Amino acid sequence: MERIRPAEIERESMAIIEHGLRARGITLPAETGAVVKRVIHTTADFDYAENLRFTQDAVRQAHTALAGGTIITDSNMALAGISRPAMQKLGCEALCFMAEPFIAQAARERGVTRAAASVEHAASLYPRAVYAVGNAPTALLRLTEYIEEGLRPGLVIGVPVGFVNVTESKERALAACIKYAVPAILAMGRKGGSTVAAAILNALLYQAADLTAPESRLG
Amino acid sequence: MERIRPAEIERESMAIIEHGLRARGITLPAETGAVVKRVIHTTADFDYAENLRFTQDAVRQAHTALAGGTIITDSNMALAGISRPAMQKLGCEALCFMAEPFIAQAARERGVTRAAASVEHAASLYPRAVYAVGNAPTALLRLTEYIEEGLRPGLVIGVPVGFVNVTESKERALAACIKYAVPAILAMGRKGGSTVAAAILNALLYQAADLTAPESRLG
Repeated sequence: MERIRPAEIERESMAIIEHGLRARGITLPAETGAVVKRVIHTTADFDYAENLRFTQDAVRQAHTALAGGTIITDSNMALAGISRPAMQKLGCEALCFMAEPFIAQAARERGVTRAAASVEHAASLYPRAVYAVGNAPTALLRLTEYIEEGLRPGLVIGVPVGFVNVTESKERALAACIKYAVPAILAMGRKGGSTVAAAILNALLYQAADLTAPESRLG
Repeated sequence: MERIRPAEIERESMAIIEHGLRARGITLPAETGAVVKRVIHTTADFDYAENLRFTQDAVRQAHTALAGGTIITDSNMALAGISRPAMQKLGCEALCFMAEPFIAQAARERGVTRAAASVEHAASLYPRAVYAVGNAPTALLRLTEYIEEGLRPGLVIGVPVGFVNVTESKERALAACIKYAVPAILAMGRKGGSTVAAAILNALLYQAADLTAPESRLG
């Protein structure tokens, strides 16, 4: 088997993505380009060049929120996908409460999803955290309700995927984040997922930590 | 916040997916339909109705391989996405060696990716396992080389994602699996990912364990 160098594959992949964007007549803004390209790299889906939305100055504010901050994910898949070296360099931590037995119990008792119960628990402990929702629209809806009530997360990554309540949850989240000046990155429409949430986080972490992405093919 | 019932959302999602398939003139075979629909459910991407390939009788053989069997994934994200209740019911285990320090060392010493080193390690211990590759084409290539040399996994799930060596790795894997009668499910082309690998595994596990998918929105 020939030797394969991840850094070369990464460069070649990004060149193919840039070519694909040009072929579609798409020019990405300098501020948001790295995030969009990493999501395309993770999904091989150029739709994300069109459906990702960034509130004004979201990327710079994300870097501030991530440095020494806390990331809350709505799935253990997204948690597993976040670059450990980049987090270590920035001194930040990532948590997911979805599999905690007390969350399952709270959800049962109050008739909400575990995802919503997780957001409620996280918001009480980490009101300024970076919230990354890649799976459950109910998590994004609960987070949006909190923002409407006064919560001010450091960043909202809203990329749940699916066919029921998903598009609506993102539209309401975008409106609330704009209204209350909460930095947000959202994948409008049905698409998204835990890999998309992790890709957005990693692109931001690599930039904030001034790292290239040597392990991007290896996670 | 209104009460949300995951089982209802699941049914509604599947009805929307079935409507979307009909609107595209696609009729899925009975054997493979549940897997394809779960992948679309996980990605909101109807491309998977066209790019998923199943070797003959792959789904039935997958059920046999999963019962009491071992699943090897090429990422901790895919590992985190597999339904624990379904695995428990079937008495199977899932493992990922990617983050093991001895894998990093082996990869460095021999100039291969960690993904390839993980496959080599797994093949020596679990030659009949279900191999799920959602991330690294080098893992699928190494697995294919082993199959060409005589390895007979219980099932190959080949859905790495990306722009370099990905399409080729799947074409070579498909040819080898057909030639040597290894059951395989592959996403041809560039698309795939850890969430796709986990969705395929979960669809197969739910069928084999005779479970509905109550936690599908909650993982």
